[in-house]
Amino acid sequence: MIEQEELRNRPIGVFDSGVGGLTVAREIMRQLPNERIVYFGDTARVPYGNKSPETITKFSRQIARFLQTQDVKAIVVACNSASACALDALEEDVDIPIVDVVRPGAKTAIGATKNDKIGVIATAATIGSGIYSRYIKENDSDAMVLSKACPLFVPLVEEGLWEDPVTDEIARRYLAELIDVGIDTLILGCTHYPIIRSTIGRIIGEDVTLVNPAYETAMELKRLLQEKGLESEHRPGLGTELYRFFVSDAADKFQKFANSILTYGILSAKVINIDEY
Amino acid sequence: MIEQEELRNRPIGVFDSGVGGLTVAREIMRQLPNERIVYFGDTARVPYGNKSPETITKFSRQIARFLQTQDVKAIVVACNSASACALDALEEDVDIPIVDVVRPGAKTAIGATKNDKIGVIATAATIGSGIYSRYIKENDSDAMVLSKACPLFVPLVEEGLWEDPVTDEIARRYLAELIDVGIDTLILGCTHYPIIRSTIGRIIGEDVTLVNPAYETAMELKRLLQEKGLESEHRPGLGTELYRFFVSDAADKFQKFANSILTYGILSAKVINIDEY
Repeated sequence: MIEQEELRNRPIGVFDSGVGGLTVAREIMRQLPNERIVYFGDTARVPYGNKSPETITKFSRQIARFLQTQDVKAIVVACNSASACALDALEEDVDIPIVDVVRPGAKTAIGATKNDKIGVIATAATIGSGIYSRYIKENDSDAMVLSKACPLFVPLVEEGLWEDPVTDEIARRYLAELIDVGIDTLILGCTHYPIIRSTIGRIIGEDVTLVNPAYETAMELKRLLQEKGLESEHRPGLGTELYRFFVSDAADKFQKFANSILTYGILSAKVINIDEY
Repeated sequence: MIEQEELRNRPIGVFDSGVGGLTVAREIMRQLPNERIVYFGDTARVPYGNKSPETITKFSRQIARFLQTQDVKAIVVACNSASACALDALEEDVDIPIVDVVRPGAKTAIGATKNDKIGVIATAATIGSGIYSRYIKENDSDAMVLSKACPLFVPLVEEGLWEDPVTDEIARRYLAELIDVGIDTLILGCTHYPIIRSTIGRIIGEDVTLVNPAYETAMELKRLLQEKGLESEHRPGLGTELYRFFVSDAADKFQKFANSILTYGILSAKVINIDEY
């Protein structure tokens, strides 16, 4: 069983188009404190959400290949656009467990809704894929799903306008239809959106349950690791680097953003040439 | 002289991180109607303006290599971020004439200002490079240059909020310091900005001269082609494709945007794999 022991101690690979996936990494740090993480943010090619499924798939496959060079025992696709467009391709390429952010979020929303009217806000790529709607209806045939692409939320978050009248105004426009229809549950279908959760919550109204897939994704990862006997049994000792961060560009900027999201201070992020993978 | 004749008939290569450079291509079409154009928009990796100089340089070199496979006789770097960060590297790599958008814009501003207070608005990468300020001061030592990065303008333009209270509000914030200082000339240092020229003009005030480097860039290209004897002497005949468009992703979306900017209707844009160059 030495081999299984060695596997258990390997890190989890987590990736996103940029910094948004740190909200998922943060949740994994909280829920699975014994696990090491290798995070990759594709900051040279960010954002993914307004690009084509083919390009998002190509980029995601390169990243999965890179993460495997880091000996990860599982991969978390902490990016809704990549989860929506590239999951099938990744599952073909890779023989370690893969967790996406779409299915856990959809499952939570199905459990939470009382009037069967579920809203989804996400990038154009995620909404265009129709995946949330498809997955929810497969599991809850009575559900009505209302999807809305919110392409300006990512740049507004990245520019730091987390509490700002402009973000309020844009949120009012994006959410108007969802309010009219009377949804009672709203999936935050992009990993940037939890950062402006309070703005979204204020505008959509306090009766609407906001679903942040990050928590359910971490729990899904936990279940999967347990099922496969891959959980790390104890916290790595001193001297072991718990969390490692890689980006494809601008490590300094990433570090600054990461330190505003994570309680854990990032010492450094390393730049790699992702299109070589 | 058969060789020179063949050279004259070659197309001009024009590139940008995405669609913004079409405002420059449009000006070349107007000022040099005999010239064929091969346009490349790096829509898979757009935007450049918030990325590092190293990454922008790497991407620009790949594009210059691609354009040379299309037998272009000159290259127009129709992207301020690439002009600011990658020009030296491109001039090393390439032995055909290169025209950037920074120097022509700076030159025009120097000619236009009366109070020697010049404003520059551009992406974070362009402002961070300090190139406008450096170039203006080298040529007009009395000039005071005020630079302001406006990172939200590109997503606002790409989302079509060309005339919108939100764009007004963001413009008011970005331009406030420049108004306070009393600039009389403002360089639109990003090829997306001419699209919201009327918003910028309304907010900065009608006494401020707006400089759109696209026109001066086209004129600079014209001068350079004349000097090298590379001008096309007559309009290519029927059956010759005057303008060809290549992108790295999402040709449909590009085409739609292009058709809203160019009077000439784009028939098609072809997707190529830019990281192979």
